[in-house]
Amino acid sequence: MESIVTATYAVHFNEIAYLQLNEHLAESSYSKIFVLVDENTHASCLPTFMSQVAVANYEIIEIVSGEENKTIDTCTGVWEALSELEADRKSLLINLGGGVVTDLGGFVASCFKRGIAFINVPTTLLAMVDASVGGKTGVDLGPLKNQIGVINQPEMVLIIPSFLKTLAERQLQSGFAEMLKHGLIQKKNYWEVLKLISSFDAIDDLIYDSVVIKNKVVLQDPTEKNLRKILNFGHTLGHAVESYFLESENHETLLHGEAIAIGMILEAYLSHKLSGLSELELIDIKTTFLRRYNKVDFSSEDIKIILGLLKFDKKNSHGNINFVLLNKIGLPTIDEQIPDNLYAEAFAYYKE
Amino acid sequence: MESIVTATYAVHFNEIAYLQLNEHLAESSYSKIFVLVDENTHASCLPTFMSQVAVANYEIIEIVSGEENKTIDTCTGVWEALSELEADRKSLLINLGGGVVTDLGGFVASCFKRGIAFINVPTTLLAMVDASVGGKTGVDLGPLKNQIGVINQPEMVLIIPSFLKTLAERQLQSGFAEMLKHGLIQKKNYWEVLKLISSFDAIDDLIYDSVVIKNKVVLQDPTEKNLRKILNFGHTLGHAVESYFLESENHETLLHGEAIAIGMILEAYLSHKLSGLSELELIDIKTTFLRRYNKVDFSSEDIKIILGLLKFDKKNSHGNINFVLLNKIGLPTIDEQIPDNLYAEAFAYYKE
Repeated sequence: MESIVTATYAVHFNEIAYLQLNEHLAESSYSKIFVLVDENTHASCLPTFMSQVAVANYEIIEIVSGEENKTIDTCTGVWEALSELEADRKSLLINLGGGVVTDLGGFVASCFKRGIAFINVPTTLLAMVDASVGGKTGVDLGPLKNQIGVINQPEMVLIIPSFLKTLAERQLQSGFAEMLKHGLIQKKNYWEVLKLISSFDAIDDLIYDSVVIKNKVVLQDPTEKNLRKILNFGHTLGHAVESYFLESENHETLLHGEAIAIGMILEAYLSHKLSGLSELELIDIKTTFLRRYNKVDFSSEDIKIILGLLKFDKKNSHGNINFVLLNKIGLPTIDEQIPDNLYAEAFAYYKE
Repeated sequence: MESIVTATYAVHFNEIAYLQLNEHLAESSYSKIFVLVDENTHASCLPTFMSQVAVANYEIIEIVSGEENKTIDTCTGVWEALSELEADRKSLLINLGGGVVTDLGGFVASCFKRGIAFINVPTTLLAMVDASVGGKTGVDLGPLKNQIGVINQPEMVLIIPSFLKTLAERQLQSGFAEMLKHGLIQKKNYWEVLKLISSFDAIDDLIYDSVVIKNKVVLQDPTEKNLRKILNFGHTLGHAVESYFLESENHETLLHGEAIAIGMILEAYLSHKLSGLSELELIDIKTTFLRRYNKVDFSSEDIKIILGLLKFDKKNSHGNINFVLLNKIGLPTIDEQIPDNLYAEAFAYYKE
């Protein structure tokens, strides 16, 4: 597979990924190499990965998996480990894991001694198609997702789809939601193809297409002034739902993709009401997501708290909550405001 | 006083500072304005400052003063306060205080929602002449100074020397050490002028000169690949001394300038031994600093621990500890290695 070139680095796939990494390591004179993993990628991915990497010495730093550990405290632990292991400014951090490891590891590297080099090796479908392009690094602040972070680019990103074999079906479905989103906001054909997928066994080409779509958007608007905002479709309400479920004691935590699938149904409804999305396409969107993701039960109290969290959304400014809506599948519109009464209607439509 | 233009922003002085700030606020459509202070600048500087600033509404966030609070935990507190007070991406953070407030506040702003605008208003002599140029933001990690941070530039820096009237003599002397350093590394004339200063009452022009010197160095090497390293003269051993005294229970904490004054004597000795600094200039440096800064008592155990801390210095790479030395006053040399036996000699020379 041909490598995808972003603004400042390349995304390499499969065997080319290992070749490029080894060439980079041979060319760069890193003083030390650190690999950040969680307990899952430590066991399932690290042995395979390191067997292909030509380095004599490296240090492993392990964090505990899970969104609830995507915190500043975890960063402090990694910073202390790096100090303890005598990392210096010429050290390299390789982040081998899902979005928590790559987002947090990217932030840790960006701030350690005011910035060391890092390479991301996403091992979940979500991280491959979502976190591999765009330079967003960061951690959560209490219930607020990705509230603390910086924009900074890795040296390279390596995508090795065979790591997906280590994932549970639910994890794969979560990542697939972001791929479906890429279809909804940019390419109706791609949406139609994805709808038909029932097995994740041979989706290398579809992962590639998703990275190409996201990269095309980010290249046109690296600092998220305009076009790039379309990547947030489903995320305004989706993030609030995800945050609420993460903190709530009455609900099981939702995976990111499961939460934004709900967000996309809700925001498709708002699109139908406000920006011309046809009823046919609205039904198509709702049916497609509900076929893959179990319907979640929201009480009116839940909805009230979720709507309260909206005001912390990073896309807000001057007190406005800004939404991405669809005119039709493949054609999004940004900076849309929502009349207050429509939120309850959207949740009612989801529930019906 | 004419404003000093750095790579991306300007440093404004006195009444021009307020004019420029008010013009900037009128032109920019910030959604909210936050002012970060510590309890000292809250009481002594904020009323004066805000009486000159044309804004209807602003929020104050206060942190506890002191280097021991320059931590990630303090950052988390400020990030939580910003979230609580509904700061968004279009908000502005004004950091009004010494180096702890401006370094920490710059880091907080750089990471909040992946970066909001900030303006620094240094209120100590140290922060005026040192932290006002260069874009270094950050906090300490345990005993390790400025281990966590990013390079990021403020919108502008405002220097109002009348704030110095609120400072104790010891604080002023601490800042003066960085000015003396600017003389040692770039301008013998300036060193000679500074040596004669006995009162800090009318040093506006000397502050201006120091900012010009530092800016000239930073402009030539913004990312600290070469020339900019000269600003670290006295800091390799000075930081280690400062870190040790910060953590040690047997010693009173040293102010930054007091620690780097010691560092400069030690590194002047190393310069005499290794890079041609004359004995006359070495004695001049030692005498000048010891006239201003009390001699500190180091046990051999103290020295052992201090030397152990050197390996965490941010300038290190590949296991080498890199020093800035002087060929003569005004002419520095970088990336110098020190034979192990010279450290004890340098401390002995300091003590004699």
